Amino acid sequence: MGSSAKIGIVTVSDRASRGEYEDLGGPALQGWFERALSSDWEPVARVIPDEQPVIEQTLRALADEDGCCLIVTTGGTGPAPRDVTPEATEAVCERMMPGFGELMRQISLKYVPTAILSRQTAGIRGNSLIVNLPGKPSAIAETLDELFPAIPYCVDLIEGPRLEAHPEVVKVFRPKGK
Amino acid sequence: MGSSAKIGIVTVSDRASRGEYEDLGGPALQGWFERALSSDWEPVARVIPDEQPVIEQTLRALADEDGCCLIVTTGGTGPAPRDVTPEATEAVCERMMPGFGELMRQISLKYVPTAILSRQTAGIRGNSLIVNLPGKPSAIAETLDELFPAIPYCVDLIEGPRLEAHPEVVKVFRPKGK
Amino acid sequence: MGSSAKIGIVTVSDRASRGEYEDLGGPALQGWFERALSSDWEPVARVIPDEQPVIEQTLRALADEDGCCLIVTTGGTGPAPRDVTPEATEAVCERMMPGFGELMRQISLKYVPTAILSRQTAGIRGNSLIVNLPGKPSAIAETLDELFPAIPYCVDLIEGPRLEAHPEVVKVFRPKGK
Repeated sequence: MGSSAKIGIVTVSDRASRGEYEDLGGPALQGWFERALSSDWEPVARVIPDEQPVIEQTLRALADEDGCCLIVTTGGTGPAPRDVTPEATEAVCERMMPGFGELMRQISLKYVPTAILSRQTAGIRGNSLIVNLPGKPSAIAETLDELFPAIPYCVDLIEGPRLEAHPEVVKVFRPKGK
Repeated sequence: MGSSAKIGIVTVSDRASRGEYEDLGGPALQGWFERALSSDWEPVARVIPDEQPVIEQTLRALADEDGCCLIVTTGGTGPAPRDVTPEATEAVCERMMPGFGELMRQISLKYVPTAILSRQTAGIRGNSLIVNLPGKPSAIAETLDELFPAIPYCVDLIEGPRLEAHPEVVKVFRPKGK
Repeated sequence: MGSSAKIGIVTVSDRASRGEYEDLGGPALQGWFERALSSDWEPVARVIPDEQPVIEQTLRALADEDGCCLIVTTGGTGPAPRDVTPEATEAVCERMMPGFGELMRQISLKYVPTAILSRQTAGIRGNSLIVNLPGKPSAIAETLDELFPAIPYCVDLIEGPRLEAHPEVVKVFRPKGK
């Protein structure tokens, strides 16, 4: 099995990073992966302010130094002036994955018309897939339930560890023979 | 109530700007807002040619000098060489809102397969939301009916005035408590 | 009718270009157009490796020297490090057509959740429309069946030849009077 897969979990929030507000997004993400993943993994959690240089530095460190195969962010993807998570993500990625943002907005549109205000994106840096998830815990689960089936095969293609999930929680899809 | 919300309405059309063709898009946009909005507002209308520098200058002036919280354009979003409204929009915006273009193309795809030829986009410049709408009056209404519910909350988030609509025309959505 | 329309068909694959693997994507594309098109056309086929400069050079030559009104690629649009077809496409296009990638991923999502891993895009270079299609022959047909109805009108708008199709194979859409 080798070493366990590292998953970076980044809460981007001025208030949570100053301790004025309990971080709900990070624990919601970690709880989702605990329920879903059946293969070995460990979280690498960070809580940081909505500062583009800090977000970029955190994503780079999680990818390059910690060796996370997957980095998920929560928060900072709306239209407000302090929302800069997508810009930081794009700045550190070598290639963007437009299908993730498109599908995430489609999923959220089933619940609220303001889903189109989300600027969530995803991309690849080296051997790491970086995905911006929503800020609200309920939206995190709604999104990951539908998005995650494609993630393990993406991690395979960028030469990361083999992620497996409990099929009664989420059905991972890989093409036949992969 | 303070001063009324200003909405920029920009018709981008070589022929309309030369008076060779009656501007139908601008009046269709203005009529839609007259029917839909219940809060105070005033239009700031412009009819300009398909010249990228002119479009950029017009969008900048409407945002920075006229203080429009919302600027809608009609025309110039197709694949033809003179269609440069999306490029001008992207050039003046500080951040793009990809969900608007995605949803607008999805809406139009219900009517015509050539909806994918539209390059409509949206973005934010300072306290102004700029949205490229279709050129055809019938497509303008089809699009705004479905897109507008998310716009007032976006304007709130960029610190613009509070836009309200007649619920029997269009149902504005704001998260609870906002 | 004048000279026949030229359609560039580009297989991007390291293995196919070295002859280690039979090119299936290119013949699948050519077969689709043979079944679908009723107007005069001729293919200009190329099989090249996943090297961004080679892809760019090939696309430029097919557009500028061969005068292809439509250039379709197959392969190289996934997240793997060697997948660079979208980057090459974006590099040679003057304007991008985001609706194509969005619709192609929506089509593929009906079949597999990993459709979001495709980075397929499309754009315009001069009088040529360049479209990245999937690598798998079955996905090529699924995609073109739904995407092609919008392509002839796009080619009209960029001043290419008039493409016509057998309506029992695929229904081309043009606005009334066009």
